Amino acid sequence: LRRNAIPHLRKIVNKTHAADLSDVFPYLTVRQQHKLFELIDDVEKKGILFSELDEATFLAFVEQMNVDDIVPVFEAMPSDDVADLLGQLRDEKSDAILKKMKREGQEEVENLLKYGDDTAGGIMVPDFIALREDATAGEAIKMFQKDYKDVEMPFYLYVVDEYGKLVGVSSLRQLVVVSPDTPLKAFMSTDVFSVRTDTDQEEVAKLVARYDILAVPVVDDTNTLMGIITVDDVIDIIKEEATEDILKMAGVGTEFIESKSILKNTRIRMPWLLASCFGGLAATFIIGEFEESLKQVSALAAFIPVIMGMGGNIGTQSSTIVVRGISTGFLDVREIWSVVFKELSIGLLLGLVYGTLIGVVAQFRFSGPKLALAVGSAVICSMSVAALVGSLVPMVFARMNVDPAVATGPFVTTSIDIIAVFFYFRIASILLGL
Amino acid sequence: LRRNAIPHLRKIVNKTHAADLSDVFPYLTVRQQHKLFELIDDVEKKGILFSELDEATFLAFVEQMNVDDIVPVFEAMPSDDVADLLGQLRDEKSDAILKKMKREGQEEVENLLKYGDDTAGGIMVPDFIALREDATAGEAIKMFQKDYKDVEMPFYLYVVDEYGKLVGVSSLRQLVVVSPDTPLKAFMSTDVFSVRTDTDQEEVAKLVARYDILAVPVVDDTNTLMGIITVDDVIDIIKEEATEDILKMAGVGTEFIESKSILKNTRIRMPWLLASCFGGLAATFIIGEFEESLKQVSALAAFIPVIMGMGGNIGTQSSTIVVRGISTGFLDVREIWSVVFKELSIGLLLGLVYGTLIGVVAQFRFSGPKLALAVGSAVICSMSVAALVGSLVPMVFARMNVDPAVATGPFVTTSIDIIAVFFYFRIASILLGL
Repeated sequence: LRRNAIPHLRKIVNKTHAADLSDVFPYLTVRQQHKLFELIDDVEKKGILFSELDEATFLAFVEQMNVDDIVPVFEAMPSDDVADLLGQLRDEKSDAILKKMKREGQEEVENLLKYGDDTAGGIMVPDFIALREDATAGEAIKMFQKDYKDVEMPFYLYVVDEYGKLVGVSSLRQLVVVSPDTPLKAFMSTDVFSVRTDTDQEEVAKLVARYDILAVPVVDDTNTLMGIITVDDVIDIIKEEATEDILKMAGVGTEFIESKSILKNTRIRMPWLLASCFGGLAATFIIGEFEESLKQVSALAAFIPVIMGMGGNIGTQSSTIVVRGISTGFLDVREIWSVVFKELSIGLLLGLVYGTLIGVVAQFRFSGPKLALAVGSAVICSMSVAALVGSLVPMVFARMNVDPAVATGPFVTTSIDIIAVFFYFRIASILLGL
Repeated sequence: LRRNAIPHLRKIVNKTHAADLSDVFPYLTVRQQHKLFELIDDVEKKGILFSELDEATFLAFVEQMNVDDIVPVFEAMPSDDVADLLGQLRDEKSDAILKKMKREGQEEVENLLKYGDDTAGGIMVPDFIALREDATAGEAIKMFQKDYKDVEMPFYLYVVDEYGKLVGVSSLRQLVVVSPDTPLKAFMSTDVFSVRTDTDQEEVAKLVARYDILAVPVVDDTNTLMGIITVDDVIDIIKEEATEDILKMAGVGTEFIESKSILKNTRIRMPWLLASCFGGLAATFIIGEFEESLKQVSALAAFIPVIMGMGGNIGTQSSTIVVRGISTGFLDVREIWSVVFKELSIGLLLGLVYGTLIGVVAQFRFSGPKLALAVGSAVICSMSVAALVGSLVPMVFARMNVDPAVATGPFVTTSIDIIAVFFYFRIASILLGL
């Protein structure tokens, strides 16, 4: 970089949104990253950049920073984000940073660290507007002009009683509409949604999405207002939970791992393949039992892939519909039998269609009506059973409060493989008199 | 229902959130639904209930309603929701309703109907606060008290020039902080994100999620402000898109179909199974070619399931990571070769582990070192090829601007099945000298 390019670059950097700068970071060396970072004038922007970086890039970057340089950035960040980042650092480093932070910020972060990562307490910000119910609209507006300048999302005004307990909610808009001497309790809404500090983040996201609200207050078990969760965090939760569902069903853990190394990836993915390995080997032993039949009619082997494939695919359809249906609320876990019966009927119908088609091909290719009948019946059988297993297993897991996504993927596929192969050879050996 | 129970019920109904009432609806007969509906006093609440109902329930319910009773409810709803519902109705009915609506609402809805369902124009609301840049903060607050009482989300104040073109953004908070005679242009932010009416809704959702904003203004190609999209609609888009991704990958269409009838379900799911049917039959013909080898070593058939299963599972892992990585922005489509190389390496490593394991089992079960070697090599081969195909196909589709989710599911699984079977028999016939 030429000397005189620096002021120019500084201008560009300061005009660029932190979320966009975070995209460039992984392509730079750590030295370049630090040079770029120093060009940022606004310490709040540095904070946003910190929370936008992926874990690996952030750790490598911050490793080369002095605690004294980190502290001011953390102090300019919302405390929920600070708590997240501290959780990624080594214990000594995060302790050292916490110790150097200003008392107030330090307490906020420590309070957040008390709560589980996936609970309302762990994601709330203690950064909210709470006013006493006897304050007037005019007083409230004055407080906006002074005390609440730095509040992240000043859209709701929570109203608390003398003990700090949540009693109502209002908004800046209502403040400017009523006359200035009206007390809050005269026009606040007492119908206020709230969640507890230990509420699961998924529940929080469902509530916010369902009632189209911009923030939800978090209270402790005495209904004392502790913090709020804003809609931008809810969006992150919804995306995270959808990704989790998808990854779990495909058997690749619960977190997006593409940024990790090849060896780490391999290690995370390995155990998820164990189920399908054991299942496949079980099928090997089942087919081994029918070795005599195979010796007499070697064409039997040719239909193993299509029978397994059709069962596997319809099973994936059924379990995906059920898992996603449960997590979006389209399906009710209590209606287990009607859902399973429906899937079984669909499996039977689709089995009849494809069983006939595949049976006809078998007849033309190998010209044995009995083999064709055996193959066709096996397809019908494997497709109905697959739809049954594919819908029943996640429903049962969900009822037992086990996450259906994580339990479904490999488990369902493997069971279906084994069942399909077994039924096929059983039916064939009976029909062909082997 | 007893007579005197009605007033009591009315109280409960009017205290319950419309989103919760919508949960009860599908369990009632249409007559009961209408009784319940009549108990709702607030016409706005009736509107929310309308938009919360699933399509089938809504259609059955509204079928029994007079146009004259529908119109006031629609007039109390945001026009984007009205446009959505009208799209579900028969043309005659929706035309009759539109004709009876007040001029203003009618025009708004007709404007929305012009734009594609999945574009910013199709989901925006024309319900925003736009002020001229020379208006003062005091004047703006006055307008809040009068003209903008009904605006859905009054959090941003858009500033336009004399031609209605978007030039800046401010907020109610800023209005109360500055002195009342300051003109908007003195304190507005000129750094305002906007989208075009034809921007894809997925892009809109990404923008809002990325920059943590509560609403994004929609402009036409002359930068004239046409409407806004609020964060509650963005949440719906994010959930919808995640569900779409999941369903497409499992080959069950793009919409959640569980509420449809068994026959309709069967019809929608049928074509998605065709790929796997043809793939399976192709495998049948490939194995048929090796009938002589099978006759000599019938144990070969026993390992078909495990070789297909291992390939299929690692292929699903790879394609899921890539599809979800692309749609969440974790993966960059331009880095096609580094991603595919990484997946191939992981496939090779996992193949070595599981190939050895399965080879050892083959050796013990069928005690032929050559067969064991053939099975082990086939597992390595099928797992590496599966990881390669599973990552390459969605990357290539994404680069060609074809939705990787819809193209990936059945296509990848089927290709992997065929390739795995072919390699297995090829390797076995060479190694065993068949």
